[in-house]
Amino acid sequence: MPVSQQCDGTGTDDLLASWNDGPTKKSIVDFVARVTKAGGIDYVAPEERIATFDNDGTLWSEQPYYFQLSFALDRVKALAPQHPEWRSKELFKSILARDLKGIFAGGEHALVEIVAATHSGLTTDEFEAEVHDWLATTRHPKSNKLFTEMVFQPMLELLAYLRANGFKTFIVSGGGNEFMRAFAEITYGVPPEQVIGSSVKVKFEMRNGKPVLIKLPEIDFINDNVGKPAAIQKHIGRRPIASFGNSDGDLEMLQWTSAGKGARFALLIHHTDATREWAYDNSPMGKLDKALDEANAKGWTIVDMARDWRQVFPFE
Amino acid sequence: MPVSQQCDGTGTDDLLASWNDGPTKKSIVDFVARVTKAGGIDYVAPEERIATFDNDGTLWSEQPYYFQLSFALDRVKALAPQHPEWRSKELFKSILARDLKGIFAGGEHALVEIVAATHSGLTTDEFEAEVHDWLATTRHPKSNKLFTEMVFQPMLELLAYLRANGFKTFIVSGGGNEFMRAFAEITYGVPPEQVIGSSVKVKFEMRNGKPVLIKLPEIDFINDNVGKPAAIQKHIGRRPIASFGNSDGDLEMLQWTSAGKGARFALLIHHTDATREWAYDNSPMGKLDKALDEANAKGWTIVDMARDWRQVFPFE
Repeated sequence: MPVSQQCDGTGTDDLLASWNDGPTKKSIVDFVARVTKAGGIDYVAPEERIATFDNDGTLWSEQPYYFQLSFALDRVKALAPQHPEWRSKELFKSILARDLKGIFAGGEHALVEIVAATHSGLTTDEFEAEVHDWLATTRHPKSNKLFTEMVFQPMLELLAYLRANGFKTFIVSGGGNEFMRAFAEITYGVPPEQVIGSSVKVKFEMRNGKPVLIKLPEIDFINDNVGKPAAIQKHIGRRPIASFGNSDGDLEMLQWTSAGKGARFALLIHHTDATREWAYDNSPMGKLDKALDEANAKGWTIVDMARDWRQVFPFE
Repeated sequence: MPVSQQCDGTGTDDLLASWNDGPTKKSIVDFVARVTKAGGIDYVAPEERIATFDNDGTLWSEQPYYFQLSFALDRVKALAPQHPEWRSKELFKSILARDLKGIFAGGEHALVEIVAATHSGLTTDEFEAEVHDWLATTRHPKSNKLFTEMVFQPMLELLAYLRANGFKTFIVSGGGNEFMRAFAEITYGVPPEQVIGSSVKVKFEMRNGKPVLIKLPEIDFINDNVGKPAAIQKHIGRRPIASFGNSDGDLEMLQWTSAGKGARFALLIHHTDATREWAYDNSPMGKLDKALDEANAKGWTIVDMARDWRQVFPFE
């Protein structure tokens, strides 16, 4: 693409081929045109064109349960022989029986316990290799596709479209930062340093004269709800001008982005497509209630997946 | 600069005009030539060309005491009337009397207490405005220059030289992330999202219907020693190929960088110039002992400021 197309918002709309024409697509294109128009009243310098994206349910699917939870459950199974003490714990009994109701009964606390138990003890390099292996070999229970194939084609196009218009795209998600980084660069074109996630604490240690970072079974940060603006401030240090999410966990990020001066864009994806993906907004994964009310009240863009997306997955 | 010069390491050496010819400058130029030579055995793809820089004592001076401490002490003075309880506390009595020995007697704990007391209670936007004001109006006690003028000309050139060779430059420093971001983009050309520092916790809150982040009097993270590799992993998510520091607080970062596969570069600045800057390596600020031993043992580059730098400050 010629340089002249990269920063002035013209000539790049055809990157959004999987978006049906209509008010949703128009709201995106209009916003980008306004902030990239040199000399325009809403012009934003390229270095301030920060866009943040939730991951689960926004860039890829999150049903029947978070893909990272699937990874964690597989690790419980693999590690169980080394952990006889798990056999007497209700939570781990539920996991080994793949009893989802039992798992979710424990709420967020249970998910944190699972992640802490299964994501620790490895060095950061070892963990990255584990995630790579798992992503390369494990298939989604419903679609039988690789998890990295279950990304949303319109969102891939949107990421590329924003970058072609001078935006820097970040992921700001409740998923683990190292889990997401294992595929974000290849799958989304988002480099590791632009992936902000939840994290466990690490310990610096010398092994055979070489430094390693060991992942500890202790949560460092949960990047959800009020955590998202805090993480954006800590990691990016300036306020996004556009944010994209799909659940109540994204509400504070969208509020934070929208409250800045000048042109702002906030978008929520509503999962309305039971045929091609899933239809839900009151699921243990991706509950969308308060954020939808606020989006309606404030005029944020709401994607109706069934109506607005010509294609959902790249493999269709 | 033509694009052809930006990624192959040729034609950019004259950016290092303030570096005297000799083995120090040669080690930098040779490393950059190796990792940027397309098809060479040590070639590194641009996205992996991550360079991390300490700030205090590496990019700007840190004597007679950290510049951020100077900011904090000024804030104690300004805030004292609202804090009568400080009058009975030894630490704050020392500060109000500008009794440095008394302040440093408390060690790192005292510095943390000062930062927590003076960097909290404000929103992140208010804090940024305070730092901007202070930097624009306060002068260094010895040089009578603005603090942002007391940056090292050779290091400004080195940052520009690395970027001209396709590197992404990060600051990884014990200084506060929001303190450093108030000047890093203009002074160093390093955008906020590439500044990693120490931080206090923040609280998300609605004020008159608008979200704010309030800085709390509670340390979130201290970015020094073993904290630096952990912060690099958490924030950048890949290992730097080059790191630059000046004190024992940078040792683990340099070890972490050096332990990666392929060509690596580690550099320590030794403050040897009592005439133009300061000569020290056993100061409460920037103690350089173990890291110097390891640099000598491992053949890391050591800058002898008096010998290697033709010019220290831009204002000379």
